[in-house]
Amino acid sequence: MNAPDRPTHLVPEVRQRDVPAALIAALKSRFGSNCSTALAVREQHGRDESAFVTIPPPAAVVFAESTQDVADAVKLAGEYDVPVIPFAVGSSLEGHLLAVEGGISIDVNRMNRVLSVNAEDLTVTVQPGVTRKQLNEFIKDTGLFFPIDPGADASLGGMAATRASGTNAVRYGTMRENVLALELVTASGEVIRTGTRAKKSSAGYDLTRLIVGSEGTLGVITEVTLRIYPIPEAISAAICSFPSIEAAVRSVIEIIQLGVPIARVELIDANTVRMVNAHSKLGLREEPMLLMEFHGSPEGVKEQARTVQEIAAEHGGQAFEWATTPEERTRLWTARHNAYFAAIQSRPGCRAISTDTCVPISRLADCLLDSVREADASGLPYFLVGHVGDGNFHFGYLLDPNDPKEREVAERLNHQLVARALRLGGTCTGEHGVGLHKMGFLLDEAGDGAVEMMRTIKRALDPKNIMNPGKIFTV
Amino acid sequence: MNAPDRPTHLVPEVRQRDVPAALIAALKSRFGSNCSTALAVREQHGRDESAFVTIPPPAAVVFAESTQDVADAVKLAGEYDVPVIPFAVGSSLEGHLLAVEGGISIDVNRMNRVLSVNAEDLTVTVQPGVTRKQLNEFIKDTGLFFPIDPGADASLGGMAATRASGTNAVRYGTMRENVLALELVTASGEVIRTGTRAKKSSAGYDLTRLIVGSEGTLGVITEVTLRIYPIPEAISAAICSFPSIEAAVRSVIEIIQLGVPIARVELIDANTVRMVNAHSKLGLREEPMLLMEFHGSPEGVKEQARTVQEIAAEHGGQAFEWATTPEERTRLWTARHNAYFAAIQSRPGCRAISTDTCVPISRLADCLLDSVREADASGLPYFLVGHVGDGNFHFGYLLDPNDPKEREVAERLNHQLVARALRLGGTCTGEHGVGLHKMGFLLDEAGDGAVEMMRTIKRALDPKNIMNPGKIFTV
Repeated sequence: MNAPDRPTHLVPEVRQRDVPAALIAALKSRFGSNCSTALAVREQHGRDESAFVTIPPPAAVVFAESTQDVADAVKLAGEYDVPVIPFAVGSSLEGHLLAVEGGISIDVNRMNRVLSVNAEDLTVTVQPGVTRKQLNEFIKDTGLFFPIDPGADASLGGMAATRASGTNAVRYGTMRENVLALELVTASGEVIRTGTRAKKSSAGYDLTRLIVGSEGTLGVITEVTLRIYPIPEAISAAICSFPSIEAAVRSVIEIIQLGVPIARVELIDANTVRMVNAHSKLGLREEPMLLMEFHGSPEGVKEQARTVQEIAAEHGGQAFEWATTPEERTRLWTARHNAYFAAIQSRPGCRAISTDTCVPISRLADCLLDSVREADASGLPYFLVGHVGDGNFHFGYLLDPNDPKEREVAERLNHQLVARALRLGGTCTGEHGVGLHKMGFLLDEAGDGAVEMMRTIKRALDPKNIMNPGKIFTV
Repeated sequence: MNAPDRPTHLVPEVRQRDVPAALIAALKSRFGSNCSTALAVREQHGRDESAFVTIPPPAAVVFAESTQDVADAVKLAGEYDVPVIPFAVGSSLEGHLLAVEGGISIDVNRMNRVLSVNAEDLTVTVQPGVTRKQLNEFIKDTGLFFPIDPGADASLGGMAATRASGTNAVRYGTMRENVLALELVTASGEVIRTGTRAKKSSAGYDLTRLIVGSEGTLGVITEVTLRIYPIPEAISAAICSFPSIEAAVRSVIEIIQLGVPIARVELIDANTVRMVNAHSKLGLREEPMLLMEFHGSPEGVKEQARTVQEIAAEHGGQAFEWATTPEERTRLWTARHNAYFAAIQSRPGCRAISTDTCVPISRLADCLLDSVREADASGLPYFLVGHVGDGNFHFGYLLDPNDPKEREVAERLNHQLVARALRLGGTCTGEHGVGLHKMGFLLDEAGDGAVEMMRTIKRALDPKNIMNPGKIFTV
């Protein structure tokens, strides 16, 4: 379970495959101006929010406007054994969008229609380029909403591909629980459907769940059917400060164990509150803080809030601040939403490496507190936020990208954190995915046998290894 | 989407593979008296609750006492290309346990230990032979419970293998949502682990969800880590009668669409109430009936009940009967629990063929009412119960097993029902699995491309096709 010697932080060895001119010509012929080889366009499609920045961009970008476009692009690429990388918003944190083996990018941003809203069934079907905010804007008059919120205004195709989650997952689950059905272009360019709009099914292998989280390595998602939810009758948000991280975390553990159906419970450490105050002039107490949100009926929300306040008080929680109107809630949540940018701006020119461990909630305090001690001892600046109701938290180590030593320190801290999380029965990634950065961690976590099972599936479904190759594992 | 010409009702052609005497000798040598070839033992392991009864039993039964036992039995079988069928309680309704291609049965009933209870994390890890009632008995003093209740006291390994659910799924989800991690003996006899105890993860392919619902065709489950839940502070049950099935179903649709977190909502039609009255002398109104259960805080439960009562009243629901003590609740639920046996006993010597369609809830009334009309017109006796909060319901056609004509009528009704459910965006099986009986339906539902993807995975992970072959699809 110890991983300190695996060089996961290195940019993977680039094994660029040849992209024949004949393929580019065929793409241009099929897609006309919707196939671009302009350097600026390729470069924009050759990066994401990860700290990998030295990979050459894809050889061409196809702007797909339909499932048929995607299928045709995949078939053409397959004829030349050329990799295909689906692209939408580019908000991956793990290098998913980087053309480590070369190839072409398929941009699905123009596939951005909400295809159907079934308000009665609480389902919606969208094209993969629809973003979560766009979806919520589209359905807001129905009294329904889509809860999964990974922070970035990510595309729903990308969120499905990485099994994303975020602040609301403690109550509403992740993309794993909220994707009901998919349309997929397979490695052979065939179009298949997985799942139905029925809420449950025992009809054969769960291909939907296999594709969710497969990071583009088994096909290109071209349609997503999602669960949506009634906007709660009452929503109430609260901030509460604690004398220590431990006190905050112990409160969360009790809240969850009591079965309080809390909708969000986020931790921000004192240091990060300080950054947010400097950035947004919020004047918050510079102490560890929980941000919480309660959804339900007016009485249910009051009851939840009462229970939580009692638990927090027992752990020294104080300065509860409440918000019930949308405007007040937005103000309270500003601290959380701005944490990343506030942190980045606290050290001009820096780049953040984000950790993503998730542990069983009983081990959260152990995992967090030891890791805080290590991070403090390292001297590297960092921010710390967490979806602590799920046992998931993120350190963001703030590096000078030109200082290899800092990078090494950050990687060492991350390795120590992951090793600790695995020892405690957790996972190296709660919601960001494996991508390029966590391939070593995945081996440590799942074991060689399970990763070999993944590889066997990949080889069987993508024998030419053209679907986003070089991610999750080496084939 | 029409399937009327597929002969899914026929007992599949039996392609019994040879079970060499050398394998039996090797098993006897390895397992001693824990390997039995006694006819009575083999016959007991060669049937289940399905209507397939003419398949020869397995050639031997291995009583596994450990993961190592399972791995060794699988390895030995693999050496001789002999099929392996995991067996626990035998409560499958779809022929999962039948040795259609011959082979050996691995009985995991002796692997019946609860390995760990993590009350703080709301997780438990069990061996596959632990039944759901055994688990609930084991953890009852912790104030926690495992909600999935498929009716039968099924084994948790079997429930995972068939992606089972039942009456509580409307609130707590199915095995898909409640299995966190597995230990699995693969087709090569290797032991792997999938998932962790963390509540969420984006670490590679979701092997856990791939194995859940794979019906023993990808490996033998040897450990299951499950979510458990706090026993609600307050539980309240209610029966309500309605003037028509439609009125009952419309009420359910509104309850779900309003987001009421109802824990159970079961439909029983008037005819089935009649059977239950005759069987259990309950004196219930012989009208369509909803049985409901509310879980939560005392105030929350009251609020839910108030909302539901208002909705029901608008649809002519009356004669609400409430129960809050465990004894009263048990009495109310007797009607639901006894429906199957009451129906079977209403026609001595009959056998039930159970349907299992599940549709988006907005289509539930359409799907149900047309199918009731067809069943009534057929003259075949039947019972009708349903987990209607999920859009899932079961007709049980009560056949004379010696009358091929009745069987044909039942199969025709089932085909019409499945074709209708698929047209309405639903699935042929909400919770029983495909097994032998629904292979044609699966093709209709998922399409050739998706089933071929399943087959490709199966061939890659089980190249000798020894893991419960002949189920879900032909390889």
